[in-house]
Amino acid sequence: MKINSAFVTSVLCSFIREEVARFGMAGGIIGLSGGLDSTVSAFLAAGALGPKKVLGVIMPYGDTFPQDVADARAVVRRLGIRSRVINIAPMVDAYFSRYPTSSRRRSGNKMARERMSVLYDISAEENAMVLGTSNKTELLIGYGTIHGDMACGINPLGDLYKTQVRELAAHLGVSRRILEKQPTAGLWPGQTDEGEIGLTYEEIDAVLFKLVDLQVSAEDIAAAGVRKKTVVRIAALIRNSEFKRKMPPVAKLSARTVGLDFLYPYDRNR
Amino acid sequence: MKINSAFVTSVLCSFIREEVARFGMAGGIIGLSGGLDSTVSAFLAAGALGPKKVLGVIMPYGDTFPQDVADARAVVRRLGIRSRVINIAPMVDAYFSRYPTSSRRRSGNKMARERMSVLYDISAEENAMVLGTSNKTELLIGYGTIHGDMACGINPLGDLYKTQVRELAAHLGVSRRILEKQPTAGLWPGQTDEGEIGLTYEEIDAVLFKLVDLQVSAEDIAAAGVRKKTVVRIAALIRNSEFKRKMPPVAKLSARTVGLDFLYPYDRNR
Repeated sequence: MKINSAFVTSVLCSFIREEVARFGMAGGIIGLSGGLDSTVSAFLAAGALGPKKVLGVIMPYGDTFPQDVADARAVVRRLGIRSRVINIAPMVDAYFSRYPTSSRRRSGNKMARERMSVLYDISAEENAMVLGTSNKTELLIGYGTIHGDMACGINPLGDLYKTQVRELAAHLGVSRRILEKQPTAGLWPGQTDEGEIGLTYEEIDAVLFKLVDLQVSAEDIAAAGVRKKTVVRIAALIRNSEFKRKMPPVAKLSARTVGLDFLYPYDRNR
Repeated sequence: MKINSAFVTSVLCSFIREEVARFGMAGGIIGLSGGLDSTVSAFLAAGALGPKKVLGVIMPYGDTFPQDVADARAVVRRLGIRSRVINIAPMVDAYFSRYPTSSRRRSGNKMARERMSVLYDISAEENAMVLGTSNKTELLIGYGTIHGDMACGINPLGDLYKTQVRELAAHLGVSRRILEKQPTAGLWPGQTDEGEIGLTYEEIDAVLFKLVDLQVSAEDIAAAGVRKKTVVRIAALIRNSEFKRKMPPVAKLSARTVGLDFLYPYDRNR
């Protein structure tokens, strides 16, 4: 689980630089929440592309979470990147005022998708690559909105567990404030990831690392001291979120089917 | 290129039925545009699940394209499926009134993503699977909006070229009106797919079939009578749209990386 932060930083900066160039994009664009993951993505992007080629888009829902907006602004100042603030409340309210819901999950997903839609629109305006902010923990347990915060052109954080992102953040010099913040999807006041999932990221990551990277069986992980119920639950989260990690299934009818046996190798003509 | 429509219908109905059941969903949901592809998806879904388990969502932008809305309503009546009409103008206007653009591509993409966001929201409300409407032609040349009309839970049409979808539609008994309509993304009045691309679907599909399914080289296709410029252009469309057919690249750092060498086989525990 221990990472070599200097090495990881160098790999990820090269990755960002090369992918942005390969796609012929002029820069990178990131939805900045004021949280750890988007902050680390912004630090890496600024290092890879230079701060003037990075645009941080801060997308609060009205005046909720002013402290997060302030934290995101502090990241912008610290890195010297460009920024925009877009309030998503008018668009989201235009929908829910007509079709109300009491479901926090549905309103949270609608907000996440509105942020995606705004980010992709600005990425077209700027010819900038949308840089992802989903870490490996979130991708594996499916803690994110498909076609929302999980959407991106490339994802620099996707192979780092949350606890590893925190380690990398400390190396990069991310502020203590953001390092020590309780991770939250910002769906409602007081919501925290760990509170909602019912486990700490340390607990989740330790199990994921054994299940996924080391391929230890659920039984053996439980035998080594983790509660069986916890392991079974995490394994179920992985299984049930697989649809978020792949393209939609297409029924095979022809000799060459998109997503199954046809996928043009994009670096074939590099 | 010739399909056996009865066989294809049977395969695609089983596909829809089995995938909806496997994911534990109560039914299917489709964005109905009044065009050919979404109509065929709705016919297949009604056949697979029974009409009462299919919801057609008609999402016009204000009063534009009233004929398409009427055509979509006719499909609903004809199949006996459930339906809802959601006007996306309030949400889309809430954005572009504040951040105007003259780019038809940007406004079209924003609309497509708003439709996705509405469709996914209702799919959560209804516990229904979003059924895709992108055909193989669109997927291969990238004629669609990523995280917009290309987003779905499963895609029954993804391995059928546009001309094959039309053949299947005739077999299914889709109305002459819809069969003979000029395909359009409905982005602006008078827009047609073929006018925008500058080629007919017959021309595009003939080249795609040779390039992709038969793996004939661009040179040999041109030698057989198609204009070299056309073949080169179609090959470039395939290459440049690959990012729409795959998950975002993740930089590999660990032993098992999401999207590269870890993808939980979702039918492992069937």
